[in-house]
Amino acid sequence: MNPYRTESLLRTRIVAAVGRDLAAIEKALTENLDPYYDLVARTARHILFAGGKRLRPLLAVLSARICGSDPPESIRFSTIFEYLHAATLLHDDLVDGASLRRGKPVAHQIFGNETAVLTGDFLLARSLSIAADTGNPRIIQVIAEITELMSQGEIAQLFNRGRVDLTESEYMEVIRRKTATLMQGACQAGALLAGANNGDCNALKTYGHHLGMAFQMADDLLDYTADSGHLGKAVGGDLKEGKLTLPVIYAMSVADSTDRDRMKHMLGNRTIGEPEFRAFVDLLTANGGISYTREKARAHVAGAKEALAGFGESSPAHKLAMIADYALARRK
Amino acid sequence: MNPYRTESLLRTRIVAAVGRDLAAIEKALTENLDPYYDLVARTARHILFAGGKRLRPLLAVLSARICGSDPPESIRFSTIFEYLHAATLLHDDLVDGASLRRGKPVAHQIFGNETAVLTGDFLLARSLSIAADTGNPRIIQVIAEITELMSQGEIAQLFNRGRVDLTESEYMEVIRRKTATLMQGACQAGALLAGANNGDCNALKTYGHHLGMAFQMADDLLDYTADSGHLGKAVGGDLKEGKLTLPVIYAMSVADSTDRDRMKHMLGNRTIGEPEFRAFVDLLTANGGISYTREKARAHVAGAKEALAGFGESSPAHKLAMIADYALARRK
Repeated sequence: MNPYRTESLLRTRIVAAVGRDLAAIEKALTENLDPYYDLVARTARHILFAGGKRLRPLLAVLSARICGSDPPESIRFSTIFEYLHAATLLHDDLVDGASLRRGKPVAHQIFGNETAVLTGDFLLARSLSIAADTGNPRIIQVIAEITELMSQGEIAQLFNRGRVDLTESEYMEVIRRKTATLMQGACQAGALLAGANNGDCNALKTYGHHLGMAFQMADDLLDYTADSGHLGKAVGGDLKEGKLTLPVIYAMSVADSTDRDRMKHMLGNRTIGEPEFRAFVDLLTANGGISYTREKARAHVAGAKEALAGFGESSPAHKLAMIADYALARRK
Repeated sequence: MNPYRTESLLRTRIVAAVGRDLAAIEKALTENLDPYYDLVARTARHILFAGGKRLRPLLAVLSARICGSDPPESIRFSTIFEYLHAATLLHDDLVDGASLRRGKPVAHQIFGNETAVLTGDFLLARSLSIAADTGNPRIIQVIAEITELMSQGEIAQLFNRGRVDLTESEYMEVIRRKTATLMQGACQAGALLAGANNGDCNALKTYGHHLGMAFQMADDLLDYTADSGHLGKAVGGDLKEGKLTLPVIYAMSVADSTDRDRMKHMLGNRTIGEPEFRAFVDLLTANGGISYTREKARAHVAGAKEALAGFGESSPAHKLAMIADYALARRK
């Protein structure tokens, strides 16, 4: 159960607890970017310094620390996961035809598709170079695996677009590849950097997996439940794109044929207005799609915290637990 | 000096000499692709099995062998460089707005931009996974460096588009990053896989660098001198895109103001027809742009062969020398 009443209280506590790490990560993100060309620098900065949470680098740093070691290179190393994340955002926004990200127009609309593609490639390459600097083949293996699974997840999502018969297990597989893999990899790589034993590596891998699953489900919920101003991107994007997420998959699976047909009819309709969107959300709620998804996400938050049990009480353990709570409590 | 009179004779000799390797590379390219989704498989196959020369994997295999070792994994390993190459082709054709590649419509026109972006990402990820399997941090470092330099080269080329004041040294830097880096890296990584000493690694690095420079200059020449049917892509593409290559840079630097203005006027004009294109090629020829570029490329071919001197006479040395000659002799 979430022990904090409000998201803002939880966020304040997390930021207070990891503020110094976040500042160090921020600095390293700038220092290691140093791209050769002005426009790439601008494009990369646009995506990198637009209010991201730095969750993935933070996971890598805290995972190294919970294993009892805080190698001096862990901050630089942790930027790998933010660069990788930014690279996929650049390509995905382009593939999805998105228009807003964190309250700003997406990069490809400002700088052009060409620059967005090549800057994504550059950021991916940058993250590989930093990974290669570790000289640790197991870490490289983890990064290579992340990259491959994420690209497969994005491809699956593209091909599933508009499919109204997507199943819950297909959805789970997509979000595992698309989102959980990177968080899992950041945790696992942090543990490897600290020279952790297999047991600890696997525990953090499990933590990262559950966190990522919860995080993506919360994201998919927010697309139906958030205020657009608060979320920083257009709400209802998934509906308009015809992207089936768990709230919809579940609601459609239990709805009667009238409700199901109404939902099917609205899915993928890009011209949908506010009243239809509200009606769609009402259908999701009435058919239990919202509460079912929240329950599933809550179970993953619990799974994430359980994976930390073996580490005992410690400051990084406490922080990782707070982050797990935040995955679901957040409003953007 | 090129000891073979015709391209076709040289090509026949090379294919006879490396036919078994090429067949093994072909098989490995299929086996290691195995993508998860049908459309990606199709897109990847479209770019991978459309008459590519397999030059880069061949360089890796021959580089391992010239160092006196032929590790059993060298064929699988060599696919890294074809996947990397295919990944950049997919993204570059999209960025360049190209329409033909090897005589066929480019992938993004058939399968859509989204699939081309994501399949490029997938192929890059695939090549990383295979690289990670070597467990050799120096090889990983080489691959990471290649990826980073290539993306910078592509970005520079995008930003230079339409710049009529591009200098020869700027051009050299772009083609070094865009093309020479990958061939150099394939040779270097092949040597590293064979456990070669530093001297041999560096010699093959030098060979690959010169080969890549010659290869790209020959490519840029072909855009003005080839038949479109033979080349398999639209001739004059660089002119229409306003992409300044060495023949143009040199010709403009020595031309009188009348000729220079005529050339400037045609550069970047996408509606140009056959007669204007012929007139442009005549201006290039009259001002020495074609012969100057051929001379520069010839010097790089000589540099490549010189780098092989220390290895003495051997079958792989002979093959690598033939490939260097072919870089300039080829007509597509």
